[in-house]
Amino acid sequence: MGVNSYSNSRVEHLACNNNGSNNNMKIQAEIQMPPLEIHKVRLPPERTTLQKLRHRLSEIFFPDDPLHRFKNQTCLMKLLLALQYFFPIFQWAPHYNLSLLRSDIISGLTIASLAIPQGISYAKFANLPPILGLYSSFVPPLIYSLLGSSRHLGVGPVSIASLVMGSMLSETVSFSQDPILYLKLAFTATFFAGLFQSSLGILRLGFVIDFLSKATLVGFMAGAAIIVSLQQLKGLLGIVHFTNKMQITPVLISVFKQRDEIGELPKGLNPPSSNMLYFNGPYLALAIKTGLVTGILSLTEGIAVGRTFAALKNYQVDGNKEMMAIGLMNIAGSCSSCYVTTGSFSRSAVNYNAGAQTAVSNIIMASAVLVTLLFLMPLFYYTPNVVLAAIIITAVVGLIDYQGAYKLWKVDKLDFLACLCSFFGVWFISVPLGLGIAVAISVFKILLHVSRPNTLVLGNIPGTPIFHSLNQYREALRIPSFVILAVESPIYFANSTYLQERILRWVREEEERVKANNESTLKCIILDMTAVTAIDTSGIDTLYELRKVLDKRSLQLVLANPVGNVMEKLHQSNILDSFGLKGVYLSVGEAVADISSSWKAQP
Amino acid sequence: MGVNSYSNSRVEHLACNNNGSNNNMKIQAEIQMPPLEIHKVRLPPERTTLQKLRHRLSEIFFPDDPLHRFKNQTCLMKLLLALQYFFPIFQWAPHYNLSLLRSDIISGLTIASLAIPQGISYAKFANLPPILGLYSSFVPPLIYSLLGSSRHLGVGPVSIASLVMGSMLSETVSFSQDPILYLKLAFTATFFAGLFQSSLGILRLGFVIDFLSKATLVGFMAGAAIIVSLQQLKGLLGIVHFTNKMQITPVLISVFKQRDEIGELPKGLNPPSSNMLYFNGPYLALAIKTGLVTGILSLTEGIAVGRTFAALKNYQVDGNKEMMAIGLMNIAGSCSSCYVTTGSFSRSAVNYNAGAQTAVSNIIMASAVLVTLLFLMPLFYYTPNVVLAAIIITAVVGLIDYQGAYKLWKVDKLDFLACLCSFFGVWFISVPLGLGIAVAISVFKILLHVSRPNTLVLGNIPGTPIFHSLNQYREALRIPSFVILAVESPIYFANSTYLQERILRWVREEEERVKANNESTLKCIILDMTAVTAIDTSGIDTLYELRKVLDKRSLQLVLANPVGNVMEKLHQSNILDSFGLKGVYLSVGEAVADISSSWKAQP
Repeated sequence: MGVNSYSNSRVEHLACNNNGSNNNMKIQAEIQMPPLEIHKVRLPPERTTLQKLRHRLSEIFFPDDPLHRFKNQTCLMKLLLALQYFFPIFQWAPHYNLSLLRSDIISGLTIASLAIPQGISYAKFANLPPILGLYSSFVPPLIYSLLGSSRHLGVGPVSIASLVMGSMLSETVSFSQDPILYLKLAFTATFFAGLFQSSLGILRLGFVIDFLSKATLVGFMAGAAIIVSLQQLKGLLGIVHFTNKMQITPVLISVFKQRDEIGELPKGLNPPSSNMLYFNGPYLALAIKTGLVTGILSLTEGIAVGRTFAALKNYQVDGNKEMMAIGLMNIAGSCSSCYVTTGSFSRSAVNYNAGAQTAVSNIIMASAVLVTLLFLMPLFYYTPNVVLAAIIITAVVGLIDYQGAYKLWKVDKLDFLACLCSFFGVWFISVPLGLGIAVAISVFKILLHVSRPNTLVLGNIPGTPIFHSLNQYREALRIPSFVILAVESPIYFANSTYLQERILRWVREEEERVKANNESTLKCIILDMTAVTAIDTSGIDTLYELRKVLDKRSLQLVLANPVGNVMEKLHQSNILDSFGLKGVYLSVGEAVADISSSWKAQP
Repeated sequence: MGVNSYSNSRVEHLACNNNGSNNNMKIQAEIQMPPLEIHKVRLPPERTTLQKLRHRLSEIFFPDDPLHRFKNQTCLMKLLLALQYFFPIFQWAPHYNLSLLRSDIISGLTIASLAIPQGISYAKFANLPPILGLYSSFVPPLIYSLLGSSRHLGVGPVSIASLVMGSMLSETVSFSQDPILYLKLAFTATFFAGLFQSSLGILRLGFVIDFLSKATLVGFMAGAAIIVSLQQLKGLLGIVHFTNKMQITPVLISVFKQRDEIGELPKGLNPPSSNMLYFNGPYLALAIKTGLVTGILSLTEGIAVGRTFAALKNYQVDGNKEMMAIGLMNIAGSCSSCYVTTGSFSRSAVNYNAGAQTAVSNIIMASAVLVTLLFLMPLFYYTPNVVLAAIIITAVVGLIDYQGAYKLWKVDKLDFLACLCSFFGVWFISVPLGLGIAVAISVFKILLHVSRPNTLVLGNIPGTPIFHSLNQYREALRIPSFVILAVESPIYFANSTYLQERILRWVREEEERVKANNESTLKCIILDMTAVTAIDTSGIDTLYELRKVLDKRSLQLVLANPVGNVMEKLHQSNILDSFGLKGVYLSVGEAVADISSSWKAQP
């Protein structure tokens, strides 16, 4: 422990050299601080390596503390809770009543009226037969209602995942030329998407999807929307020019004809499709890649939507549990002629607004789709392709979030860059590469922030013991003979040399300024460590080096307010001994007060 | 701007519910704070996007402000300064005197006596003819003395880069089977190493080498040292067992014989080797890869060593300039029969201790090597291989830094893991992949810290306006009706959902605790934003969501001490309006004081 002085020293008045209006020359005549006691900087309570590891792992994998309800319960109760944990339906079903059912019927029928045209359009995005959109609105919602923890999520196919599946598969396989292979690949991709999603949930690696930032998704959706609009525009124009036979044939009719030709998709309920899963052959890699990309995209949308509505109704959805639910529903879907589904933003919004209370609204929607599949399908036979193309273009153009992009530009230029990259990457390169570039930019931004952290010069806010950035607070004043620097990042191998040089540059610049203004010479550098939330071995070496270098220049280096784990590491590495008794203080204010009073004592 | 209240409110005494010894129930009877004025949170001075971009770029690429000396100078002076900038020799040569020369001669001769046996051994590490080690101690030091900014760097071949070059090239090409191809690849790799190093310097991308952490290098060196020792041990044992003809032949004699066979390496001064650079053919990729890896490794050592000794003598070396110097000296070296060189730790340490004053000591060393090359070479003809093998093993075993590894284990387990990975990666996989894995772990550690940041519950340290972690400071006391949370990381897309859930969990846990202890109900959540050094658009949305969610639960959310750029972004995104007048405070203390006094006013 570095600091042992507990003397109740009062702050002495410091010499005033200059108090002009020049910003550079702002110096405090007198530190108007209340009498300060000098407090000891504490180490956090000691823990063994195992305890630390357990705490660290539980923060990484179980930040939501899923077991907190199991504490102090009987065995039977624990079993019931476990059942409720894996099948949330057991949690709310016992309290289900008629009034809830009425709300759920209304909202379920409302989303069904949206789900049917939407399902047809989205299946077209994926170049799949429209009926797959309806199949996908039947089985997955039923499974989700058993396993899902959100009460408002409307489940079904979504635009992004549909677009991506269509564009990725169509690059290699054409539905019109080999519909069976295309369908096989779509179901297999759905299977792998589900497998990937549920594994993420089981391994509690949910934070992987956090790396798809909103900025990336805004750019990505706009890019994908423009591609689809152009594809559909070609279809629309094809109908205008009767000369081109290929393009005259309405895609819808051809698709329906092909459906008849396929035979594996009979009218009526979802036919089983587990025999169509494709586990070996030249296109397996394509199916897996498509599955991973659509899986992560649909997961991102599903989790984000679930969280949004849960937050509005003041309950929490468990991200990892949701991943398992969405994953299992896609695995089941891949065996029952469905393609990738997730919680859809538009359906969930309609569901929420129509007053949905529980996942029963998904069951009602599925029932309505069932009726359609059994009795109303012939009505869709004559839907003209142009109409469908128009619906699709209208829908996808709505995905282009101009305002979102403008807000990104206004608030964060690097976010905007990530957005642009995913936009143009999807457009000019390919979907997975475009997304990859955008994620890389986002990660690069984090690394850049870590490898080039901010350092601020602090000054005292008159009349308070508070020290703040001289740049942000014009009223803040410098303390003569001190340079107070705040480091705004953990000190890591990636920034330790930069920080050492940057701090020495600050000291050099301050020395030049002091000389130019004829102020009292520098004697002490205080590093405010409040925002240094972690330190590694390179960082510790840097502090040690820095102290040595400053020592040679007769400058004292003092640390203020090291946080718990930084203090612990400083202690473990024995570096605190080299800082001496007066090397670590609880706050900048106490450091300034104590050090300047010690100067007074020994002039 | 959120906060406009400037009322000079005094802190009211808060009701005391409990003051037991239970740590969970520690509550403050009275906030013993001095009278506080409520201060406005300021925005940093407004800057245009261009200004911000320029500032950001200058911090990334020019953190050392290399142009600060050019300010307020005449044209002629600027020209002179530019000359001095690119050729530091012009900086010190005018002040050079006899006394300096005497020191430099002593230190130069001292390092020459080290350089000659070291050069021979290190060339063997790289499976190259020993004379290349001497050549490499002649031309590069001369060039460095013109361009380098370190006064104490001793230039020559180094162990790591030699080891790596040997192991990477020998995997594909054997020196004994095709010595000319091997030499060609070694010179080409040296050329690319130099090209890569000088480009990093010219593009000011020096921070790339910061990603090779000390932990990685400790593991890497130990792994490489063991491999080389085993290789040499085989040589030693080969001499013991005379039965095996392949291993009887002393490697040294065969190497010297091969040198005679090659003919391109005549006795005397460095022969030119630019005609041996290999720019097309099947092995070009190998040469480039070897060049990149040895280039980055030697650069890391050279810069680190230069910085270490500069810090001891209280001057600064310019990382980017050093990269250019080291890069150009390797390019020149590749054209004069040298292989990769850099600032060597052992030579520099000897140089420094022998009293070197300027880069002239490198010139003296080069002259001594010159004399050796011209006149003393025959003496080395009969050096037995066993002796060389023993020297090498002794040298490399010294590279295994047990204590360093133990310190890593003690201070930072993840650093130790990176160290282990580079150790075993180099051993069992390959040099570049082993290094790659270690760098990936280091980067992963940064990302993990960002995606799962710490959140702390703060309490007041009695008798001060300071708020600190309840976990670290046992004397800190909770304030009734408040939860004060510190977020210890920037709020980014990568952690925004985690943070939202974690904060809501803290609130839930605090509510449960309050209920269990019959304390006064929670009314206000204060987020201490001191360590939130940056925020992006996802982070802003999270704060907005969080405020909405807490609002529904009748809990007030207040921010304390947002730093400059966070404040700026909150302002730009108009989120401050939603926080209302009393939503942002300068410090936690002021927030607590003002909010609790407002509760008193309207009960």
